[in-house]
Amino acid sequence: MKLWQKNITSLKEVEKFTVGRDREFDTMMAAQDVLGNMAHAIMLSEIGLLTKPEANELVTELKKIYGRIGKGEFVIGEGVEDVHSQVEFLLTESLGDTGKKIHSARSRNDQVLVDLKLFIRDQVQELAEAVQPLFDLLQRQSEKYKDHLLPGYTHLQLAMPSSFGLWFGAYAESLVDDLVTLQAAYEVVNKNPLGSAAGYGSSFPINRTRTTELLGFAALSNNVVYAQMGRGKAERVVAMAMANIADTLSRLSMDACLFLNQNFGFISFPPELTTGSSIMPHKKNPDVFELIRSHCNRIKALQNEIMMMTTNLPSGYHRDLQLLKEHLFPAFATLKDCISMAGLMLENIEVKQNILADEKYKYLFSVEEVNKLVLKGIPFRDAYKQVGLSIEDGSYSYDTHLQHTHEGSIGNLRTAEIKNAMEQVMERFNFQDTNAAIAQLLR
Amino acid sequence: MKLWQKNITSLKEVEKFTVGRDREFDTMMAAQDVLGNMAHAIMLSEIGLLTKPEANELVTELKKIYGRIGKGEFVIGEGVEDVHSQVEFLLTESLGDTGKKIHSARSRNDQVLVDLKLFIRDQVQELAEAVQPLFDLLQRQSEKYKDHLLPGYTHLQLAMPSSFGLWFGAYAESLVDDLVTLQAAYEVVNKNPLGSAAGYGSSFPINRTRTTELLGFAALSNNVVYAQMGRGKAERVVAMAMANIADTLSRLSMDACLFLNQNFGFISFPPELTTGSSIMPHKKNPDVFELIRSHCNRIKALQNEIMMMTTNLPSGYHRDLQLLKEHLFPAFATLKDCISMAGLMLENIEVKQNILADEKYKYLFSVEEVNKLVLKGIPFRDAYKQVGLSIEDGSYSYDTHLQHTHEGSIGNLRTAEIKNAMEQVMERFNFQDTNAAIAQLLR
Amino acid sequence: MKLWQKNITSLKEVEKFTVGRDREFDTMMAAQDVLGNMAHAIMLSEIGLLTKPEANELVTELKKIYGRIGKGEFVIGEGVEDVHSQVEFLLTESLGDTGKKIHSARSRNDQVLVDLKLFIRDQVQELAEAVQPLFDLLQRQSEKYKDHLLPGYTHLQLAMPSSFGLWFGAYAESLVDDLVTLQAAYEVVNKNPLGSAAGYGSSFPINRTRTTELLGFAALSNNVVYAQMGRGKAERVVAMAMANIADTLSRLSMDACLFLNQNFGFISFPPELTTGSSIMPHKKNPDVFELIRSHCNRIKALQNEIMMMTTNLPSGYHRDLQLLKEHLFPAFATLKDCISMAGLMLENIEVKQNILADEKYKYLFSVEEVNKLVLKGIPFRDAYKQVGLSIEDGSYSYDTHLQHTHEGSIGNLRTAEIKNAMEQVMERFNFQDTNAAIAQLLR
Amino acid sequence: MKLWQKNITSLKEVEKFTVGRDREFDTMMAAQDVLGNMAHAIMLSEIGLLTKPEANELVTELKKIYGRIGKGEFVIGEGVEDVHSQVEFLLTESLGDTGKKIHSARSRNDQVLVDLKLFIRDQVQELAEAVQPLFDLLQRQSEKYKDHLLPGYTHLQLAMPSSFGLWFGAYAESLVDDLVTLQAAYEVVNKNPLGSAAGYGSSFPINRTRTTELLGFAALSNNVVYAQMGRGKAERVVAMAMANIADTLSRLSMDACLFLNQNFGFISFPPELTTGSSIMPHKKNPDVFELIRSHCNRIKALQNEIMMMTTNLPSGYHRDLQLLKEHLFPAFATLKDCISMAGLMLENIEVKQNILADEKYKYLFSVEEVNKLVLKGIPFRDAYKQVGLSIEDGSYSYDTHLQHTHEGSIGNLRTAEIKNAMEQVMERFNFQDTNAAIAQLLR
Repeated sequence: MKLWQKNITSLKEVEKFTVGRDREFDTMMAAQDVLGNMAHAIMLSEIGLLTKPEANELVTELKKIYGRIGKGEFVIGEGVEDVHSQVEFLLTESLGDTGKKIHSARSRNDQVLVDLKLFIRDQVQELAEAVQPLFDLLQRQSEKYKDHLLPGYTHLQLAMPSSFGLWFGAYAESLVDDLVTLQAAYEVVNKNPLGSAAGYGSSFPINRTRTTELLGFAALSNNVVYAQMGRGKAERVVAMAMANIADTLSRLSMDACLFLNQNFGFISFPPELTTGSSIMPHKKNPDVFELIRSHCNRIKALQNEIMMMTTNLPSGYHRDLQLLKEHLFPAFATLKDCISMAGLMLENIEVKQNILADEKYKYLFSVEEVNKLVLKGIPFRDAYKQVGLSIEDGSYSYDTHLQHTHEGSIGNLRTAEIKNAMEQVMERFNFQDTNAAIAQLLR
Repeated sequence: MKLWQKNITSLKEVEKFTVGRDREFDTMMAAQDVLGNMAHAIMLSEIGLLTKPEANELVTELKKIYGRIGKGEFVIGEGVEDVHSQVEFLLTESLGDTGKKIHSARSRNDQVLVDLKLFIRDQVQELAEAVQPLFDLLQRQSEKYKDHLLPGYTHLQLAMPSSFGLWFGAYAESLVDDLVTLQAAYEVVNKNPLGSAAGYGSSFPINRTRTTELLGFAALSNNVVYAQMGRGKAERVVAMAMANIADTLSRLSMDACLFLNQNFGFISFPPELTTGSSIMPHKKNPDVFELIRSHCNRIKALQNEIMMMTTNLPSGYHRDLQLLKEHLFPAFATLKDCISMAGLMLENIEVKQNILADEKYKYLFSVEEVNKLVLKGIPFRDAYKQVGLSIEDGSYSYDTHLQHTHEGSIGNLRTAEIKNAMEQVMERFNFQDTNAAIAQLLR
Repeated sequence: MKLWQKNITSLKEVEKFTVGRDREFDTMMAAQDVLGNMAHAIMLSEIGLLTKPEANELVTELKKIYGRIGKGEFVIGEGVEDVHSQVEFLLTESLGDTGKKIHSARSRNDQVLVDLKLFIRDQVQELAEAVQPLFDLLQRQSEKYKDHLLPGYTHLQLAMPSSFGLWFGAYAESLVDDLVTLQAAYEVVNKNPLGSAAGYGSSFPINRTRTTELLGFAALSNNVVYAQMGRGKAERVVAMAMANIADTLSRLSMDACLFLNQNFGFISFPPELTTGSSIMPHKKNPDVFELIRSHCNRIKALQNEIMMMTTNLPSGYHRDLQLLKEHLFPAFATLKDCISMAGLMLENIEVKQNILADEKYKYLFSVEEVNKLVLKGIPFRDAYKQVGLSIEDGSYSYDTHLQHTHEGSIGNLRTAEIKNAMEQVMERFNFQDTNAAIAQLLR
Repeated sequence: MKLWQKNITSLKEVEKFTVGRDREFDTMMAAQDVLGNMAHAIMLSEIGLLTKPEANELVTELKKIYGRIGKGEFVIGEGVEDVHSQVEFLLTESLGDTGKKIHSARSRNDQVLVDLKLFIRDQVQELAEAVQPLFDLLQRQSEKYKDHLLPGYTHLQLAMPSSFGLWFGAYAESLVDDLVTLQAAYEVVNKNPLGSAAGYGSSFPINRTRTTELLGFAALSNNVVYAQMGRGKAERVVAMAMANIADTLSRLSMDACLFLNQNFGFISFPPELTTGSSIMPHKKNPDVFELIRSHCNRIKALQNEIMMMTTNLPSGYHRDLQLLKEHLFPAFATLKDCISMAGLMLENIEVKQNILADEKYKYLFSVEEVNKLVLKGIPFRDAYKQVGLSIEDGSYSYDTHLQHTHEGSIGNLRTAEIKNAMEQVMERFNFQDTNAAIAQLLR
C-alpha cells in the first residue's frame, strides 16, 4: 500500500527493491514520526487548516500510538511502505477522514527529514550522556594511578617516563575535544526542517516557527531548499563527530592490546573479561578491545561512505538518500556499546606495579639527569655530553624519583581543569530545553 | 646538519627519504615557529632559565627573522633539516651560546606541534574570513533574484516551482552550518601544546599557562600525552570542517554545470568566465565550476586519508605524522581559491528571465492548484482528484503567480535571520583576542 | 558454549559483545564450512590421523548436514558461538568421539579462512555469471538502437552527435574491464589456506596439496604466515573489483536519471518501472536507478572501510577481522540485485526517436561540417573559420546523416570484438574445474 | 596561448585557476605525448590525410623533441597551456603548416587519454620491475634465516613458534598476489583510446588498429564513449593495485617497528639506517619504516580520493578529471622509493639469535607438546588436559626442536614454488612486446 499511488502498480520486483530494508530502519524512528505529527497537527489547527476538535482527536490518538511504540507494540505492516504510511494508516483507521487531513501542507520529504533530525538529535544526546561515565572513570583511574610510572615511547622506542595517571587522563581530555565537535554537530542537526515540504515550500500559510518551538528545536532550518539539503548533511556531520569519539576509543584499544601483550605486560584483566586459548595458560586475549577497535575504525569510515553516496548529486531530493540510514543508525548503538564496554574493561583493569624498576628501562631517566644538570646551571649541550659519557663508560646513575610539576605533567595532572572543560561543553548542548519541549508536547 | 646528532651520519639515501619534502612545507610554518620561540624565550626568562638580557636578545633577533619571513627572505638552507633547525641556526649564528639556550625545556615534538596549531589556527581564520564575502554575495543575489522562478526538481524530475532567491539563499545558509563546524574545529585546535616536550613533559618548572597567554591560545592542551595526540587529530578535525565547506561548494558547482547545460539553460556567464570550443559557438564550458567541484571533492577525501595514515598507531609520537601536512597545507589555499572563484562566477552570473513561462513547465503548478482548493475547504484527496482529472481531460489551467509566504519559502526568504545566524557564529570564533595577543607579542 | 573453553566463563556482556552478529553471518558460510570439514577429514585419514572408517563416517554425516543447509534447515543454536562450533557439535552429537577427532591439525583460524575463501569464491562466480546477461542485453540494445542518435556532451555541454548504440555499447565494454579485475581478485582468493592453523602451521604431517585439490583451489596459499594475512586481504581485493562493477552501474544510473529528466527527455520507462507522484502526471521517478546508484556508491566505499579496519595491524590474527564480513557479505547480494534491476530497466527502456531533429541540437553537427571540408583538402584552420563564419552570418547548414566508420564509432560499434573480449575473460576464471572438484567431493 | 581560442580571452584569474598545476604534471607525460603524435602522424599518412613527406618531417621532428625530453631539455613555456600545445607549438615552429596538420582527426581529449595510458603503463612496468629485487631479497632472507625462530602472536598475544623464514617469506608471497592485481590493472590500462576524439569519434576514416599496433597497446579501447570513460577508471584501477603493494609494505613496516621496539628486540639495524636521539643511546628510531608506512597508507587512500572526485559524473568528459594526476603521478615515484628503501633496510637487518631460548617464551611450545601426544595416539582433548595440568603443577617441559614439515610451514618454506608463481605473473605482463613496439617506433 502506497498512500500516494493512483492506479498503476509497480512491478513486485521494483516494489521489493525500492522498499528495501526501510521497514526495519523506519521502525527506529517511529516515536519521532509521531512527535512530528503532533506538532504539525497543533500548528495546523492554530492556522485554521484543522479545527481544534480535529487537532485534539489527532493528538490524543498520536499519544496512544506513542505509548504503544514505547511498549514495543508498534509494527509497520507487511504491505505498508514506511513509518509515515503506517502512522497515517493508524490515524485513518481510528479517526476516518480526520486522519487524512493531517497530511495537508507537508510532504513525505519533510516528514522524513524531521523524523531523521529528531532521531539523530536523540542519539547524539544519548552518546554525549554515555561518554560522561567513561570520562569520569578515566579521570578516577588517572588520579588513582597517578604515581604508577610507565615507559613513554616515541617512534615506539623507549623514550622517557610516563605514567598511568597521564595515560588515563589523556583519553579523558581527548573526550572533551570530541564532545566539542559532537556539540557542533548537534547544533547543525537541531534545526527544524518541517514545512519545507518537497524541498520547495508551499502556498499554505503554515507557521514553522511554531513547530520549531513545539518540537524543541533550537532554531529553524530557514530556506526550504537548504532544509532539504540537510538530508545527507545531517548524517555526514554527525558521522564526523562520531569518528572523533571512535578514534579516541580505537587508539585507547590499540594501547591496551599492546600493554597486555606479554612483551610489555603493563596491564592485565580478570579472566572473565578476556578470552583464553584452548591450551596456552599465558593467553589472555583482549577480544573486547580488538572489537572496540574494529567497530570504531569502521565508524571512522562511515562519513566517507556517506559522502561517496551523496557527492555530485544536484540539489533537490534523490532517492539515493534513503540508504544513508542503513549503516548510520546501527552505528549509534554500536558506538554506545563500545563506550560501555571500554568502561567495563577499564573499571577492572589491573595495573602492574613498579614497571620502571626493571633495569631495561634505565635509560628512560637519562633526559632527567641532563635536565637536572641544566637546572644546576650547566649549559644544555655540556650537560648532555656529560650524561652521554657516563652512559658510555658505565658510570651512569639515575634517580627514579621524578619531579615533574608543570601543568599537565606527571606530577600535575590538571584533573579538575579538564573536568571543568567537560562541564562547559556539556552545558552548551542545552539538552534540558529540548527535553522540556518534548515533555510538554507529550503531556 | 641535524642538531640532535652526535657522530653517526645516516646514509645519504636515508637522509633524503626521511627529510622528504619537509623543507618545502616547513617554510610555510616559519612565522609560526618564530612566534613559538618568542613565547618560549619570554617564559624561560620569567622562570629563571634564561636571564632577562638573554631573552631580550633572543626576542629582538626573532623579530628580525619574523620580518624577513614576511618579506619572503627566509629560506631553509640546503643542508638544514627543518624550520626549527634553521631558526635555531640563525639565532646561534647571531647570538652564539644564547641561541643554543632556547632549546631548554622543550623538544622538537612540541615545537612542531605548536607551529602546526598556530599555522592551522591562522588558516582557519583566513578560511572563515574568506567565506564572509561569498556568503554576503549569495545573500545579495538571493534578494536580487527573489522573483525569478526556477523549476524545482525531486528525483531530477520536474516537481514544483522554486526560485533563484531560494537557490542562492540555500547556499548562503549552508555556509552558516559549515562555519559552525569550522568554529568547533578552531576550538579544538586553538589549545596550547607547548611544554609537552616529547609527549611526556619534563622536570623543568615551566609555566605553560604563560605561553598559552602569550600566544593567544584560548586554552591549554593540558595533559602532555594528550597534547601529543593532538597531532593528527588537529589535522583531522580541521579537514572534516573543510569537507563541509567543500561539499557546499561542490554541490553548488554541480547545480551550476547543470543549469548552464543547454537542455536546462537557466543561467549563463560572460564569455571570459567560461571556455569555448574551437568551433561550437553554443559551447560555454563551465571549467571553473568543474574544477571547483573536483578540488572540493578531493578536499572531502582528505580526512579519510588522514585517518588512514594515523589509524591504529599507538599513543606517542610516530614519524608517520610528518607527512600529514603534504596534502593538508595546500588544501587551505585551494579551498580559499575555490571560494574566491565561486564568488567571481556568481558575481557575474546571468539569470534567465521567465523560465517557467515555457509550456513544458506547466505541471509544476499543479500542486499549487490542489492547495488552493484545499484552502477553499475541499478535502485534500478530493482536490487532488479534481486537478488530476482536469489534467487528463485537458482542462487544466494554472496561475503562475505564487503566494508562498511561510518562513523560508519563495516569498519569505528570511535573509535577515540567516545573516544574523552567521554573525553569531563569527562572533564565537573570537579572532580579535587571538590576534591581539600576537600583535602584543610582536610589538 | 565455546568449544575451546576450560572452566572460566566470560561475563555475559563480554560474551554478547564478542559474539556480536556472528551467528547471522556465519550461517551464510555453513555450506563452505562443511566442505572444508570434508576435505580435512579425507586428508587426515590419508595421513593416518583418522582411520578410513572414521573418515567415512564423518564424510557421510557432513553430507547430511550439507543437505540440510541446502534445504534451509541449518541453524546455529542460541548458545553456540559460531558455525564451526555448530558443525562440530552436530558431528559429535551423531558420532561421539569421532566427531571430536576432526579438529586435529587445524585451528579455528584456518577454518574461518577456508570458509571465507570458499564463500567469496562462490560469490565471485555468481557475480561474474550475473554480469553476463546484463552484458548481453547491453550489446543487444546497442545493436538495436545503433541508428538512434543522441547528443554527446563534454563538460555537460552539447558537443557532438553520439548514439544509443554507443551509449549501451560503452557500458557493455566497461563490464569487460571490470571482469578483468574481478578475475584477478578471484585468482588471489582461490588459494587454499587450510593447514595454516593459527597462522604458524603445526607439527602434524598434513598434506595441504591434497586439500587444495579436494576443494578445487587453483593453488596453495603456501606460507602459513601469509595464508593468515589473506584474511582482510581477500576481502579487500574482492571489494576493489566489486567497486569497479559498481562504478559502471552507478555511472549508467546517473546517465539514465539525467536522460529521463524532462529537460533531456531521451528515454522513458513503462509506468510500472517508475514511481509516480501523488499529483504530477509528468513525474516518472527513476527510483530504481537512484537506488542502484546509491547502493553501488556505497559498495565503492567498502574497500576503504576494510582498509580502515585493518591498517596498521601487525601480522598475525586479530579479532578485528571478525567484523569484515558484516558489510561485505550483504554487498554480494546487493550488487547482484543491482545488476539484475539494471537489466530489468534496460530491457524495458523506451528510446526517443529522432532526438537530433530538434533545431536546438543543430550545432552538434558543426564539427562534421568542418571535417567534411578537411576531407576535401581544405586546411583544418581554414575549414574551421569557414564554418564559424557560416554560423555567425546565419548561412550554416548541416547534414544529419553521419558517416562515422572508424573502429568503435557510431557506424562501427565493434560488438563482436567486445563480445570476444568478454568470452576470453570468462574463460580465464576456469570455474568448471573448481565446480567439478566440489561436485566430486559431494558425490 | 591556447590553440583552440578564437578571440575571447578568459580572465587572468580564470586562466590561472584552470591551468592550475598542469604545466608541472604534464611535463611528466611529455615523452608519451610525442609517441602518441608519432603514431598519429604515421597513421594519418597511411590513410591519406598527410602526405608521406609531411609525415616523415613530423616524425623526424618528433624524434628530436623526444631526444630533448630525455636530456631534460623540454620545458612547457610560461604562456603555454599544456604539453599538447607545447609539442604542437614546437612542430609548427619548425615545420610551419605541416605542424598544424597533425591535429586532424583527433581532439585534446583523446590526446590526453593516450598520454595518460602510455604514462601509467610505463609506471606500472617500473613498479613491477621494482618489486622484483625486493621479492628476491625477501626470499633470500627467508632462506638465510629459516632456522631463526620468532614468537608467533595471535591477538598480539604469544601463541606459537614462528620463524624469520616464515616472516620474510610471507611478504615475498604477498607481493606475488599484489602483482596479480597489478597485472590486471595493466591489462585494463594497456588499451588504445586514440581516435576516440572528444569521446564520440569522428567522420575521418582513421585506422585505430594501426595506432594500437604502433604504440604497442595490447588491444583497442573499442567503443569511443567507453574509451573516454577510461579516464578516471585507468587511474582508479591502478591506484587499487598500488594499494595492494602499499598494504604489504605498510604491514611489513608495522612489524619492523614493533620488532625493533626494545620490549620485543627481535631485530636491529646499523646506526646509519636509523635515527638516534640527542641523548638516549638505546634509541634507534625506525624512521624509514615509519615513513614507508605513512606513505603507503596514504597511497591506500588514493583510490578512494579518485572515486570521490569522479562519482556521479555523467558519461562524457568533465574538466574535473584534470586534477586526478596531481596525487597519482607522484605516488608512482613514492611507491618505488618505498620499495627501494624497504629493500635497503631489509638487506641490512640484523636478526637476533635464539630469541625463543628466553624462559618467557616457554608456553609457545605447549601446543607442540599436545600435538606430540596426539601423534602418539592420545585423543586431542586428553592430550590437551595432560599438558594443561603439567603447566599448572609446574612439571611442564618442552622441546624447542620443531618438526614442522608440511607445505608452507617453518621446515618447508616452499621458496621455489613461490618464486615460480612470481615468474608466471611476470610473464603475463608481456612487457617485451610493448617495449619492442616503442623501440620500433623510435628507430
